[in-house]
Amino acid sequence: MNKSELSDLPLAKEKSFVKRRKFLLGGAAVAAGVLVKNSLLGMVQTSVSETEFAKISLDPTKMPGSPPSELGTRSPFEQAKLLPIPTSSRSPLQDFHGMITPSDLHFQRHHAGVPSIDPDRFELLIHGMVEKPMVFTLKDLKRFPSLSRIFFIECSGNYRGGKPNLSPQEIAGLTSQSEWTGVLLKTLFREVGVSPKARWFLAEGGDAAVMTRSVPLDRALKEGMIVYGQNGEALRPEQGYPARLLIPGWEGNISVKWLRRIEFSDQPFQTREETSKYTERVGDKIRQFSLEIDARSIITYPSFPQTVEKGWIEIKGLAWSGRGKVAKVEVSTDGGKTWTLAQLQPPVLDKAHVRFKHLWKWNGKLTEVRSRVTDDTGYLQPTLKQLQEARGGRGGYHLNPVTGWILKSDGTIEFNDDF
Amino acid sequence: MNKSELSDLPLAKEKSFVKRRKFLLGGAAVAAGVLVKNSLLGMVQTSVSETEFAKISLDPTKMPGSPPSELGTRSPFEQAKLLPIPTSSRSPLQDFHGMITPSDLHFQRHHAGVPSIDPDRFELLIHGMVEKPMVFTLKDLKRFPSLSRIFFIECSGNYRGGKPNLSPQEIAGLTSQSEWTGVLLKTLFREVGVSPKARWFLAEGGDAAVMTRSVPLDRALKEGMIVYGQNGEALRPEQGYPARLLIPGWEGNISVKWLRRIEFSDQPFQTREETSKYTERVGDKIRQFSLEIDARSIITYPSFPQTVEKGWIEIKGLAWSGRGKVAKVEVSTDGGKTWTLAQLQPPVLDKAHVRFKHLWKWNGKLTEVRSRVTDDTGYLQPTLKQLQEARGGRGGYHLNPVTGWILKSDGTIEFNDDF
Repeated sequence: MNKSELSDLPLAKEKSFVKRRKFLLGGAAVAAGVLVKNSLLGMVQTSVSETEFAKISLDPTKMPGSPPSELGTRSPFEQAKLLPIPTSSRSPLQDFHGMITPSDLHFQRHHAGVPSIDPDRFELLIHGMVEKPMVFTLKDLKRFPSLSRIFFIECSGNYRGGKPNLSPQEIAGLTSQSEWTGVLLKTLFREVGVSPKARWFLAEGGDAAVMTRSVPLDRALKEGMIVYGQNGEALRPEQGYPARLLIPGWEGNISVKWLRRIEFSDQPFQTREETSKYTERVGDKIRQFSLEIDARSIITYPSFPQTVEKGWIEIKGLAWSGRGKVAKVEVSTDGGKTWTLAQLQPPVLDKAHVRFKHLWKWNGKLTEVRSRVTDDTGYLQPTLKQLQEARGGRGGYHLNPVTGWILKSDGTIEFNDDF
Repeated sequence: MNKSELSDLPLAKEKSFVKRRKFLLGGAAVAAGVLVKNSLLGMVQTSVSETEFAKISLDPTKMPGSPPSELGTRSPFEQAKLLPIPTSSRSPLQDFHGMITPSDLHFQRHHAGVPSIDPDRFELLIHGMVEKPMVFTLKDLKRFPSLSRIFFIECSGNYRGGKPNLSPQEIAGLTSQSEWTGVLLKTLFREVGVSPKARWFLAEGGDAAVMTRSVPLDRALKEGMIVYGQNGEALRPEQGYPARLLIPGWEGNISVKWLRRIEFSDQPFQTREETSKYTERVGDKIRQFSLEIDARSIITYPSFPQTVEKGWIEIKGLAWSGRGKVAKVEVSTDGGKTWTLAQLQPPVLDKAHVRFKHLWKWNGKLTEVRSRVTDDTGYLQPTLKQLQEARGGRGGYHLNPVTGWILKSDGTIEFNDDF
């Protein structure tokens, strides 16, 4: 198949976009089978290692495959990876399908690395303004009524921009989504008898950073959980094994990993991570405890460094809001002049990544595609300029701007957030 | 904590079930922190290897953890595995949380092993009673409008029973659930122009078994897909990489893996896998093409070889139907005399595993717990005796009986299907 044949995706039977196998017309099924086999005997051009290459059969129908195993594998041809720097690893959003993030591709953000914790030695102390301080083992936590929900977790520092050669992973790879399983905070807190005067609690992690954050009690009680399950299995070490706090829709850092202590108080604890860090300038003030993740969307296809050909393109991306559900996603294919509703992939869940799609026929001329989300509170995703104007400066936290991809006539793509 | 303290889960504040740390009462937060650290310095008793053991810090707060990585890991303490025999591997249902099956723990059933396929050499031929036979590359398939849905896949031979020492994995481990991404059959079939006379198509796999099945066209068109994505990433080799057929709710074998050919006809092809195999005796006849998976449920906790203690137990399990949605799951804790509605974990999706839960206080005396599901067609999961009576014999396919777990007064558990 050559490029011209692929240039026009014939969704309405406009024309055939794959090479028609004329030699098969009128042929018997058996003959067709043979021809297909023969067609698989060509030269192999691949990017996998020689070791892996040796395992790739030229005709897989002529050689028994690997037997059933204790654990499945990933194809050696699939190379999606996190992008690690010393303090974090970003999820390859551009490689994902659907709404679930594979657990080993969940973004990582640690303040002193990933601790190795023996689950039999895990203890969670709950104390402070409570009737009876208590210590829970992992087994204890698992005996309480359990709950599974699909939520995203996003780092509040999840934005990079300002230059053309950035991928979705680099721009917004500090968000991931899993099906989490655990126990509701309100179930546990009933056990310890929280004082009516308590307004906040401290969550403390058992890593070498001894991460601490203050959590407002009333809002955390609604949906907050302590989770020990992720995508059907035990929580992964990078996400807080054996148990972490999870406050759906809030900045990731407050969902303290490797949780070991909760202390109740009538005021916040003013930890380092809510004073010198994880705050943002608004005018001449510093805003603290801006916990909710505002609505955001990003197109993951087409995106840098992919290339595209003119013709039909299914624009795809992710949208989410920490304040509720995605109400709609709009896509512009003319640099923001006009906007069209994108399709949302059901189920559209609360505080969850939703995949959006928009089928579009590109004429091959220079243009820019953008997406913007509106959540069910009516909040519309702002531009970077609007964010900067509102805050009187750029700042590093809670940036959720509309972003664009410039499609150039040679099919290459550049990132753009300067509007 | 000793057993007697754990024996009565105090969901309604009946009593504290974890040891109350009296020495903390009135203590300052700082002191509490120190005490917690000291409490982590005891002897370590663990089942992991010595190599892994060396990595486990006695006090993880005193040693920097592992840096961010390209791929996350599983904790060495988590040992959930498939159960491989020469032709299949069963999912450890008793270890799962929520509704997603981790991709590497998805059951495997191959007829000649797992082929290694280079995705750049993948070709899908669609021919037979069509206007224009066509060949699709993987890149072609990915250019069509995409769809993601959560469905279970179950092998029609997914039943073992008849003895007391069987785990959920052994009894029913040939079912798993993923979020699948791909293209609808009806989108592809529009391209090739299927003849109005076509009633069936053959699906052929590219493995060494060259697996073939006949698929009734009208019913497959409703929801059938060709999928290339699984749980957010590329389909795994064991599940058909780079692309497989997926007919939601039908026996797994028809969702041909490593798909390479589809041929249309006005009649079924009578392949080996629908004549000598994958049929069942009903009276003195053999039933063919009983494709839908009937409604089924199984309690995964408590189950063999787990042990339980008297007191509160959250009975948990999975229920599903290939004919639609789970309408209700009932649980009996007295060997089938009386039944109570279990809670269903939302979202309750069509043709999907649904987790059910039922909180129950066990008095420690010999009893048997069972579950039974009713789907939204009104079908009630039968007993093994009812299945045998209806079919006039046991047979090996499409068995979905109500199953029970006998809880003995010493806390051990035995499987039972003899009722």
